[in-house]
Amino acid sequence: MSRRSRRTREKAVFTLEQLPVRSLANPYEPVRVLDEEQIEQLHDGSMRILEEVGLEIVNERARTLLVDHGAEIDSRTGYVRMDRGLLMEKISTIPDTFTLHARNPRWNSVYGQNHINFTLVASAPNCSDLDRGRRTGNFEDFCRFLKLGQTFNVVSCHSGYPVEPVDLPAHTRHLDAYLAFISLTEKPWHAYSLGKDRIEDALEMIRIARGIDVERLRREPSVMTVVNTNSPLKVDGPMLDGLMLMAEHGQPVVVTPFTLAGAMSPITMAGSLSQQNAEALGVLAITQMVNPGAPAMYGGFTSNVDMKSGSPAFGTPEYAKAVLAGGQLARRYGIPYRTSNVNASNCVDAQAAWESGMSLWAAVMSHGNMIKHSGGWLEGGLCASFEKLIVDMEMVQMMSEFLQPIRVDAEELALDAIQDVGAGGHFFSTRHTVERYRNAFYVPLCSDWSNFENWTDNGSMQTVQRANRLFKDVLEQYQEPEIDPSVREHLQDYVRLRKEEIRPQW
Amino acid sequence: MSRRSRRTREKAVFTLEQLPVRSLANPYEPVRVLDEEQIEQLHDGSMRILEEVGLEIVNERARTLLVDHGAEIDSRTGYVRMDRGLLMEKISTIPDTFTLHARNPRWNSVYGQNHINFTLVASAPNCSDLDRGRRTGNFEDFCRFLKLGQTFNVVSCHSGYPVEPVDLPAHTRHLDAYLAFISLTEKPWHAYSLGKDRIEDALEMIRIARGIDVERLRREPSVMTVVNTNSPLKVDGPMLDGLMLMAEHGQPVVVTPFTLAGAMSPITMAGSLSQQNAEALGVLAITQMVNPGAPAMYGGFTSNVDMKSGSPAFGTPEYAKAVLAGGQLARRYGIPYRTSNVNASNCVDAQAAWESGMSLWAAVMSHGNMIKHSGGWLEGGLCASFEKLIVDMEMVQMMSEFLQPIRVDAEELALDAIQDVGAGGHFFSTRHTVERYRNAFYVPLCSDWSNFENWTDNGSMQTVQRANRLFKDVLEQYQEPEIDPSVREHLQDYVRLRKEEIRPQW
Repeated sequence: MSRRSRRTREKAVFTLEQLPVRSLANPYEPVRVLDEEQIEQLHDGSMRILEEVGLEIVNERARTLLVDHGAEIDSRTGYVRMDRGLLMEKISTIPDTFTLHARNPRWNSVYGQNHINFTLVASAPNCSDLDRGRRTGNFEDFCRFLKLGQTFNVVSCHSGYPVEPVDLPAHTRHLDAYLAFISLTEKPWHAYSLGKDRIEDALEMIRIARGIDVERLRREPSVMTVVNTNSPLKVDGPMLDGLMLMAEHGQPVVVTPFTLAGAMSPITMAGSLSQQNAEALGVLAITQMVNPGAPAMYGGFTSNVDMKSGSPAFGTPEYAKAVLAGGQLARRYGIPYRTSNVNASNCVDAQAAWESGMSLWAAVMSHGNMIKHSGGWLEGGLCASFEKLIVDMEMVQMMSEFLQPIRVDAEELALDAIQDVGAGGHFFSTRHTVERYRNAFYVPLCSDWSNFENWTDNGSMQTVQRANRLFKDVLEQYQEPEIDPSVREHLQDYVRLRKEEIRPQW
Repeated sequence: MSRRSRRTREKAVFTLEQLPVRSLANPYEPVRVLDEEQIEQLHDGSMRILEEVGLEIVNERARTLLVDHGAEIDSRTGYVRMDRGLLMEKISTIPDTFTLHARNPRWNSVYGQNHINFTLVASAPNCSDLDRGRRTGNFEDFCRFLKLGQTFNVVSCHSGYPVEPVDLPAHTRHLDAYLAFISLTEKPWHAYSLGKDRIEDALEMIRIARGIDVERLRREPSVMTVVNTNSPLKVDGPMLDGLMLMAEHGQPVVVTPFTLAGAMSPITMAGSLSQQNAEALGVLAITQMVNPGAPAMYGGFTSNVDMKSGSPAFGTPEYAKAVLAGGQLARRYGIPYRTSNVNASNCVDAQAAWESGMSLWAAVMSHGNMIKHSGGWLEGGLCASFEKLIVDMEMVQMMSEFLQPIRVDAEELALDAIQDVGAGGHFFSTRHTVERYRNAFYVPLCSDWSNFENWTDNGSMQTVQRANRLFKDVLEQYQEPEIDPSVREHLQDYVRLRKEEIRPQW
């Protein structure tokens, strides 16, 4: 057989064995790293930050809104100060759960309580794979990530551009990106909150894609945005414009302070967490001043910097503790919680996996409702890796399976089988085993469980090489999901029209 | 500068930065994957196994002991059956905590309740490193592992031969191994429970090493053994001889059933766990019949086989659930718990790290008191890897640091620093940071947190390559701990004498 036809034959038999679509929830109690008194101390610390220091709100409309609701402007600094009574009253209207609607309802997903959603890497400037190495983000790779995100059942939604499509003109890039989200995937997605226009386009295009009106969109959140504060204590103008528009339309806003301990926040965990809490709650309050009851999420991203190099570190013991503490804080206020699967490795090696593993366990056991960057994040977020995406899908699938509780009943206890097999026997061929072996255990995506001799005979492939093969096989099999041709045409017209309207920003 | 002198200079400045010696405990609540009713169902299932099926006890003395205490011999199978009243009464005398004494009291360690101890890989037939590849276990490599185990502060004790020193004659191998444990390390160690002789030699040599008499040794446990059942439901004769002698002398016995779901136990988690529970408790009862109050541990090792290849799989979702469930069962009986850090990868890659990470998190959050195989296990236990040992030390150190609770007080909350820095500033040079930056965060052993450009300039080293360099640096710096020359001579005489006594076993 020629090399080519052998490869063709191999390709022909590839089928992706993955976990089924699940509405995933964590049935176990969250891990708590703080006691009740400590939570109240952190709460008090953050209230004092809002009361005594305040936030710099670089947006006139938002400042006015805050003052109208009872906040004060500090005459010395110009920061907006809020007392805890006002703050707590405002955030009390944030719903503890909401559903994010997809253009295919199969992918609707629930955020809040013990529901868990995993999303792909977002906002990486670079991407990489073993074949072509590391390169600047581009639209072709952007689309390949979307296709992978569509394919893997454990991915709930897209929480940003997996990689920045830098080859597209900056002023209209979002239109091409939105069209790609809608065409290549059926899952909900994310619009960057950089001014009103980008959000308006997102709202309009999601309405067209779902064939719904403004009122129904308001009742059925369909696109999310993540707003990062410019820590410490500063909130930029365009972010707030986007945030207020999203809240007005009832779309979920995730507020995530970027509190790297020792750089953008105090070097102590307690200091960073109380600052995170102050910034998150202070900005979340604005969403409720705009539209009480608008869905929103509390984002935690506290990590530490490497004090030798000043680089951010991720997946550290400090990170894991901060993630779990953040979950406790979010639950104290009854707000859905966003956290992340992160690492600082420069390649898809053991470090990438142990740092991600540390992040992921903490995120899952913190009752994180959205675990962002769960597929492909590398280099502290500076690179989206195709092979890391596969590694992450494996780890996320393992978590999904870990969250299926052990069943205990007479059938599962198998006393009869134990009696039949007796001492020193084996269970391989018992009826109890034969009836169950196909679906008994988690089937991995790219773990290799063969023995050393077989593994060597098969080329001593490391995980990253198996992941490389797998992501290409998946892409080769990808099929674009169906979309009504008239809807597609409507969307294409919208994009064309808007591209004509938008002037390049020099 | 020549290559050689540059290397010499590099070596000269190497100092191992590691965590200090800690008596480690888990301050957080354990993760529970079973509810109270399920625990009782598993308990009931295992009691029925002991009552209705029984264990095959291949040792006349142990059978007689069991019958004398009220057990019955099944007339059809010859298995020993115990009712739950008898079983529960016997295991009730197992202490919930004990201290293992080292020849240097600095390394005494506590087992039970929320105390955690990590031990190196044990019983691998092969070992490997990047320089010399994979090879059969030998005494030189055995000693190198012991030196590494002595050096890393997170290692509490040696729970077996890290790698089997196959080049030593089998019948006297244990004498050389014990002498190496005593000479090269100060930490407690383990004797294989393969007949009485090996245990007698261990007890005698630890007495000499510590300079104590039989009575004091009985009061101060100083050497442990792990007894694996020959699952399902069978317990081999020589194991039981060793177990009874250890119990008689008040030394801790760890009973670990080898329940691989689908092979040596039912394919269901509930079936495997109830069988594990029956075997562990049934054999633990024997230790208390010999010597009520003798220290002992409940070992959990339930994992699943890969139903495609029949190979054991480790660090799977099923494994993590079994580890956590095993902790709940051990706590129900108030018995210290042994679990493991395991994986099935054939090299030190991402899979090795995510499977170990999954095992380790579960082990730590199960309140495992001894986490065996925590340094160097690879290939499902068939290989002890020097680079994996370093990777594991990093992961174990991260867990140790994760278990240091967040401090919350006025100093840590840092409100003054937050006020001083204000909005949009940075914390790098604040007094609050400068006073703390040296010890603020976990300092890794071999994680590389440099940016992509620096990492590339430094040779794009993967974790396994950094680990390779590190273990060799550590070995180069190793210094043999002090020992009284007369004690050393006494031990050497003992070994020489015993070697003359022991006839080769053909």
